[in-house]
Amino acid sequence: MKNSPSSASSPNNPPDPARPVHELRERVRYSETDRMGVAHNKSYFEWFELGRTEFCRSRGLPYLEIEDRGVFLVVAEASCRYLKPLRYDDEFVVRVTLEEAAGRKVVFGYEIRSFPEDKHVASGRTVHVPVDRDARVCALPEDILRKITGEPD
Amino acid sequence: MKNSPSSASSPNNPPDPARPVHELRERVRYSETDRMGVAHNKSYFEWFELGRTEFCRSRGLPYLEIEDRGVFLVVAEASCRYLKPLRYDDEFVVRVTLEEAAGRKVVFGYEIRSFPEDKHVASGRTVHVPVDRDARVCALPEDILRKITGEPD
Amino acid sequence: MKNSPSSASSPNNPPDPARPVHELRERVRYSETDRMGVAHNKSYFEWFELGRTEFCRSRGLPYLEIEDRGVFLVVAEASCRYLKPLRYDDEFVVRVTLEEAAGRKVVFGYEIRSFPEDKHVASGRTVHVPVDRDARVCALPEDILRKITGEPD
Amino acid sequence: MKNSPSSASSPNNPPDPARPVHELRERVRYSETDRMGVAHNKSYFEWFELGRTEFCRSRGLPYLEIEDRGVFLVVAEASCRYLKPLRYDDEFVVRVTLEEAAGRKVVFGYEIRSFPEDKHVASGRTVHVPVDRDARVCALPEDILRKITGEPD
Repeated sequence: MKNSPSSASSPNNPPDPARPVHELRERVRYSETDRMGVAHNKSYFEWFELGRTEFCRSRGLPYLEIEDRGVFLVVAEASCRYLKPLRYDDEFVVRVTLEEAAGRKVVFGYEIRSFPEDKHVASGRTVHVPVDRDARVCALPEDILRKITGEPD
Repeated sequence: MKNSPSSASSPNNPPDPARPVHELRERVRYSETDRMGVAHNKSYFEWFELGRTEFCRSRGLPYLEIEDRGVFLVVAEASCRYLKPLRYDDEFVVRVTLEEAAGRKVVFGYEIRSFPEDKHVASGRTVHVPVDRDARVCALPEDILRKITGEPD
Repeated sequence: MKNSPSSASSPNNPPDPARPVHELRERVRYSETDRMGVAHNKSYFEWFELGRTEFCRSRGLPYLEIEDRGVFLVVAEASCRYLKPLRYDDEFVVRVTLEEAAGRKVVFGYEIRSFPEDKHVASGRTVHVPVDRDARVCALPEDILRKITGEPD
Repeated sequence: MKNSPSSASSPNNPPDPARPVHELRERVRYSETDRMGVAHNKSYFEWFELGRTEFCRSRGLPYLEIEDRGVFLVVAEASCRYLKPLRYDDEFVVRVTLEEAAGRKVVFGYEIRSFPEDKHVASGRTVHVPVDRDARVCALPEDILRKITGEPD
């Protein structure tokens, strides 16, 4: 990974051209809102997961293929800062950044922005640890690591 | 099963003493409400599932043990009629009735009532088909069937 | 509504050119699966809702605008038949049909098909009743009704 | 609040008698699991919310009453560290601690422990900001603050 430690810990910095980024656009579902009329705090973690799925696909490595090889990137930590609410049917962009990727730890950063207003709605981060089918911590196979980080084979 | 076909198709009838019934009490979670301020229609299907889980446990057969034996009672049909809304923190009772149980089909009926007002809030029904680990339709083992229906061994 | 009663009650018939239909494509989210490895039965009701949202938008009437006018199409009945499982990351199409639309009742039918295999995965139906901000049953305003049914103004 | 800053930032310390704590017991629902067979990462944030609800009730201040007064404790930050997985039907305890409570900020800490094994499963934290009906930041009324912190009137 070519991420500098400084950029890795600060998802709000301007995007670093060396950091792999992927974006996807979604809408708030009715079922994702709560009685306050806004998207529920748990929904953001589902959107982060959508972002990871599409990030991996964009790297030519559908997440399903990783699990088919018996490796599961379990979530060890998850966090979100909520800056502005999103309402039913609001469009938003999930920007996913690979902040760190090593054999035993993968970190994704997320930024959610309103669309088309492009206001900063939320920021988040998830830390993943590779485990095998028996839920034992394992090393991420080299070829998977290279694909996720976008390094040439 | 001793359920008469007529009672089986009508979950609103007075409870038939021959029909196995189980009740549990829950509260509406904040995350189960939507922007209308009421429990979302999908939440009822989660409550039906809670009801099935507790029904099986009350028969001395935790649902987990059924799956541990390689049998999965997949949902083939699910339906719900919504009569009154439930709001955040409202208490309610799920009354579960085993409407039909045979080797290749199990039917549960559900009634949701407000607590302590005891008003009829919703009625539902789920039809289940036993499948094996390879998702092929199979017969429900005899001993499981006997336990679910509450018949003596 | 120009739906013939016969076609309205049978969502599996070939599409009738007189019936308003809308399609959207989605993928199964990781968070929508359960320990059986397939999309949970409740997820289908969220997808039906997505379908309704997009159906209304395609008619030039975002569902949000209906609620902004103080009319809520509450779900009075919901049902689903599950024919084949969907797994994580599977693509599928939700085909939404307006089966009935009158001042006090709106009925949508749904068909979910795998993509690109185009296999029939599930069928469903929801019945809606218009209520006002005080949750009292009301009549759907004429102009909303006309837009939903696609009738000329 | 009488919480010492040191104890407030470390939810794993032995409980400090001066810190208000509340515990509740739950089971993992089938619908809360994912294809990995364990409770999905988003479920923990719903359990934290259940914990907050019961914490407020135990203080004689049902959360609903706070919202009925036009004050909403919106989630500004949420985080969770996942140490061990929970599976379908596993019982667990949510221990809720009020880590900080001031007019414009309320912080809850959470510890999830398996039951009856009493193993540490997860730790979390949510930061809340009071807003009014127009979503503007406001001060938490004095009497609500006193009740939440358990101070004598």
